[in-house]
Amino acid sequence: MSVRQLLVDIHTHCYLPRYAAFLRQRSFAPRIFTRNQEERLLILDDEPLSGRPVGPQYWDRDEKLKFMDLHNIDVSIVSTANPWLDFLDKPSTASQLANELNEDLENYCATSPGVDGFDTMKRLYGFGLLPLIKGIGTEDLLQTVKHITGLPHLKGIIMGTRGIGKGLDDPALEPLWEALSNTKLVVFLHPHYGLGSGAKEAWGDQENGHVLPLAIGFPVETTTAITRLILAGVYDRHPDLKILLAHSGGALPQLSSRIASCISHDPLVSSRLKHDARYYVSRLYYDAVNYGPEEMGFVADVIGRGTAYSSIPGAREDRLVGYKRMLFGTDHPFFPPLGKEAKWASVLENLQAIDEVQRWEKEHKNAVRGGNAIELFGLGHEQGK
Amino acid sequence: MSVRQLLVDIHTHCYLPRYAAFLRQRSFAPRIFTRNQEERLLILDDEPLSGRPVGPQYWDRDEKLKFMDLHNIDVSIVSTANPWLDFLDKPSTASQLANELNEDLENYCATSPGVDGFDTMKRLYGFGLLPLIKGIGTEDLLQTVKHITGLPHLKGIIMGTRGIGKGLDDPALEPLWEALSNTKLVVFLHPHYGLGSGAKEAWGDQENGHVLPLAIGFPVETTTAITRLILAGVYDRHPDLKILLAHSGGALPQLSSRIASCISHDPLVSSRLKHDARYYVSRLYYDAVNYGPEEMGFVADVIGRGTAYSSIPGAREDRLVGYKRMLFGTDHPFFPPLGKEAKWASVLENLQAIDEVQRWEKEHKNAVRGGNAIELFGLGHEQGK
Repeated sequence: MSVRQLLVDIHTHCYLPRYAAFLRQRSFAPRIFTRNQEERLLILDDEPLSGRPVGPQYWDRDEKLKFMDLHNIDVSIVSTANPWLDFLDKPSTASQLANELNEDLENYCATSPGVDGFDTMKRLYGFGLLPLIKGIGTEDLLQTVKHITGLPHLKGIIMGTRGIGKGLDDPALEPLWEALSNTKLVVFLHPHYGLGSGAKEAWGDQENGHVLPLAIGFPVETTTAITRLILAGVYDRHPDLKILLAHSGGALPQLSSRIASCISHDPLVSSRLKHDARYYVSRLYYDAVNYGPEEMGFVADVIGRGTAYSSIPGAREDRLVGYKRMLFGTDHPFFPPLGKEAKWASVLENLQAIDEVQRWEKEHKNAVRGGNAIELFGLGHEQGK
Repeated sequence: MSVRQLLVDIHTHCYLPRYAAFLRQRSFAPRIFTRNQEERLLILDDEPLSGRPVGPQYWDRDEKLKFMDLHNIDVSIVSTANPWLDFLDKPSTASQLANELNEDLENYCATSPGVDGFDTMKRLYGFGLLPLIKGIGTEDLLQTVKHITGLPHLKGIIMGTRGIGKGLDDPALEPLWEALSNTKLVVFLHPHYGLGSGAKEAWGDQENGHVLPLAIGFPVETTTAITRLILAGVYDRHPDLKILLAHSGGALPQLSSRIASCISHDPLVSSRLKHDARYYVSRLYYDAVNYGPEEMGFVADVIGRGTAYSSIPGAREDRLVGYKRMLFGTDHPFFPPLGKEAKWASVLENLQAIDEVQRWEKEHKNAVRGGNAIELFGLGHEQGK
């Protein structure tokens, strides 16, 4: 009997109605405002072109399902889009909103249709949110983690790069990593700030729309955040932590040997790490959102070589294993088509890229398209949770 | 008759004695100062660990030749290390110092030994310097370009990312690109500022030595600079411009399909460019300084696919051609060995990486090790210059 191969989208966002309503009340970024009868989302104060138009694609569940049907996506693991709760300054507000949004998302998923032919599987799952803001107490964070683990359709959490204000190498986050590595929750690490305060200088005076912050700023933010986390020894202390990197890890794969070389020339850093940086890089998960078959294959190669850089005696090397840590994603509802074409180029390009990786057999491609996600997130096994 | 294959290092720096003397006179970065009887180089004011120790490796030509002999490097194309002349504020000082340093470097190369068995070839060639600072006149820049073209052993110029203060997409640089594309000079684009004013925020509070600025800041600076240059249409107007990117282009190869996708979603930008971004990426040259065979092969793949993204009708596609635009480099005298080993790991790693690229035959590896450099820079043909 041939089992239908599922297409699972692990990088797909929404602004839940409660979150959108919250953004509409605000008078500075992040906010949703109306201009010429069009709602626009401004994520950062200095964003080019006064942000971008938004509509039902951003909050309406039916639109998500329609998008999925159009592209034959069976299951989506939906996450709140940036900036999550970063902009709040009151810990109690952040905790309460996190809990409400997590309940909302659980409901959004739990009441979604089932997947044809896969009895126990829903079409929608979610990444929850933590109240990661300055001044939040560790107990509040751990409480939210516990709350999320009790919501059966939330399979992970989405997280920005700033932690509770000082980044992901902040020693104060240690109990959070500990708690997360004791759950099955996957941490989806996603950028928001790009180059932050350095952006104006880096992007210069010419008008390039969103190209530089999205194409360079975003990936670099992720790269820096995960590198700092690795340098801080978080993976040495919590080797079971499951971190999924947005946009195929940004520049991390290509810079990983340079990072390893720079570490090996800095005894201060190298002496405190157990492995070569390339081993840690191979312990991460990567979305397959990179728009090119060469990029796709390269990310897999960089994952696959990781064991060779482990200091674990007798670590078994399997260079072809890289595909197992890569997972299809769309970045919906961002990058919509500009013309009248129905299907989204941003989706088709990544599907085509997966299909064109020369050294992948059909089974590898199917794994990236959906099999890996089903396994990593344990989709369809909510009863036992 | 078998011809010996040459090893040519195109990424190797010096601080010429005149330049080092200049830095010793300064009381703030960039400067060379003495601490506990040790000379140290401070490149940036906020540099970690009060900069780094420096010695004869940085200015003594015999040390360069010794390093070359130790690693069987036949020819080096030497460039002044960052920050070049960026820190000067008087155009006349910058022009005069550029001219003097260019003459010094010509002399440094012209009086170097010949390569055994290659009659007309010297062991040292150079990249000259332009007085690229704020307020410099176009005529002064063009005059220096002309001066360099008259110095037979200078085969290119090294350039930072700031241009005359506003980056490489500054319309004021148009005459310079025009002049450069009319010469055979290769522009070696090299980072200096890393993330600039955003660095403090990006790197955070933990002590990581030079790892983050060198392993992420440097490559990102190059990536941003060349992307801005491409977005400004410089390559559309000057398709013959020869730009060589330091550190294998930083993150450019891995982000190139994402850059292309972001451009295609921004009509403002896409409408003014002739080609998909991936075509421009394939028109550049890349040093082979990336420390890993997977990175090495990937950069070649990204170059090789470029023609497929050209909008030139009937452009002939040759995916294996990528190696032709990659050139061995060492980054000497940076990344010295920490222990007592004679040979430098930073050199051996890149040589090994070239050797281990699976889809390269011997001829491809030889080209990357030296053949490409001899052809691109026209080494040994000074008489006809």
